[in-house]
Amino acid sequence: MALQLAVLLSGGGSNFRSICEHIDSGVLDAEIKVVISNKEDAGGLAIAKEYGYKNYYVDPKKYSSKKEYDAALVSIIHDTGLTKDNGAVILAGYMRLVSEDFLANFPWRVLNIHPSLLPSFVGLHGQKQAVDYGVKLAGCTVHFVIEEMDAGAIIIQGARALDADIDEKTAVGLILEMEHRMYPQAIEWLSKGRLEIKGRKVVLLNTEKNTSQIGTKNFLINPPLEEGFFKE
Amino acid sequence: MALQLAVLLSGGGSNFRSICEHIDSGVLDAEIKVVISNKEDAGGLAIAKEYGYKNYYVDPKKYSSKKEYDAALVSIIHDTGLTKDNGAVILAGYMRLVSEDFLANFPWRVLNIHPSLLPSFVGLHGQKQAVDYGVKLAGCTVHFVIEEMDAGAIIIQGARALDADIDEKTAVGLILEMEHRMYPQAIEWLSKGRLEIKGRKVVLLNTEKNTSQIGTKNFLINPPLEEGFFKE
Repeated sequence: MALQLAVLLSGGGSNFRSICEHIDSGVLDAEIKVVISNKEDAGGLAIAKEYGYKNYYVDPKKYSSKKEYDAALVSIIHDTGLTKDNGAVILAGYMRLVSEDFLANFPWRVLNIHPSLLPSFVGLHGQKQAVDYGVKLAGCTVHFVIEEMDAGAIIIQGARALDADIDEKTAVGLILEMEHRMYPQAIEWLSKGRLEIKGRKVVLLNTEKNTSQIGTKNFLINPPLEEGFFKE
Repeated sequence: MALQLAVLLSGGGSNFRSICEHIDSGVLDAEIKVVISNKEDAGGLAIAKEYGYKNYYVDPKKYSSKKEYDAALVSIIHDTGLTKDNGAVILAGYMRLVSEDFLANFPWRVLNIHPSLLPSFVGLHGQKQAVDYGVKLAGCTVHFVIEEMDAGAIIIQGARALDADIDEKTAVGLILEMEHRMYPQAIEWLSKGRLEIKGRKVVLLNTEKNTSQIGTKNFLINPPLEEGFFKE
């Protein structure tokens, strides 16, 4: 059965749209069961409606604690039939930390994408932090979510060159080009049971030893993107 | 005139040897004036002798403070005729922090290479930190030295893939392959006056806009290595 997905988001949802497109084109074996936003005007909710996916705006102000809020989300997710055994929770620009209680419901089943080469530049605006620091290489990271922010075990990382005179907006766009390929790829690996956890290390199963890491467009992505995920 | 170099080191000196080789082959326009070690048994001192370069072991225990020790180094360096205008100080595995007084003698003329994608993994054993963290991409950084450790403006960075089961020793070797190309390249750019400082950002002058960043061996290096520095 396809991996059941719950998507949490707060914003425009371009990574969410890329996931939808990879499902539609048949390369990502997953099924969107529900989309939840903590922001009423999140563009990602409009995408969910466009695709006809079940979607909810859940207002944090109506809950007295993060614990209660997250319990409400878990309840919505479980009501779709999604469990820790058949599904995963995908954070796609979700601007809240998820609680330990939430994570306990979906152990090793909550993924996030962060726009930096972690552990550099955790937190908000990873791309701006990179530009301001003056790094020559920047990128993004898909990782398992743990309670500590942006600190979970890493599934895939991608890097590319930044020119010295780059501005934040351009950097955001360059890094999104990688995110939109890498996040669907990481979810597909999870869907196929190919991610083995060894302490902090994530081993991709059933893959050849890497001999070439370079994808299209001068991305350096590891593990390399597979067929269907690296299109121009 | 070729850029005059003082090299400070504490260990085996493989980056120092690569600098010597690039000078000998004519691609790096620089001249080693003196090599100084804070360790009597540093392999780098043997390399200096092999090449016939002036070399000193200066014992920190004979000085009552870092300030006095660094003043002795400055004196040795100045005695060779090397100044802030004609030369540079190259830290090549030098396991001491240089003082503000030392840096004031050579403003924007002290370089270091660090085996991580800074600002990740500052301090000792950057490669081991990367392996233990479980990153999928690792690399190295050449930067101007400021008083804060591993925090100066970045000249060049290089990344490559790490397999999930890699050990520290293998990672050290993979990263050294990049270091040995990137450090001579960065020094050559300094020698030719091609590094312009804009706040925290280092702009490489007289170069084409990058269209391809990928060098040999699946390195991603930015700015890209130029002719003579990327050999297999």
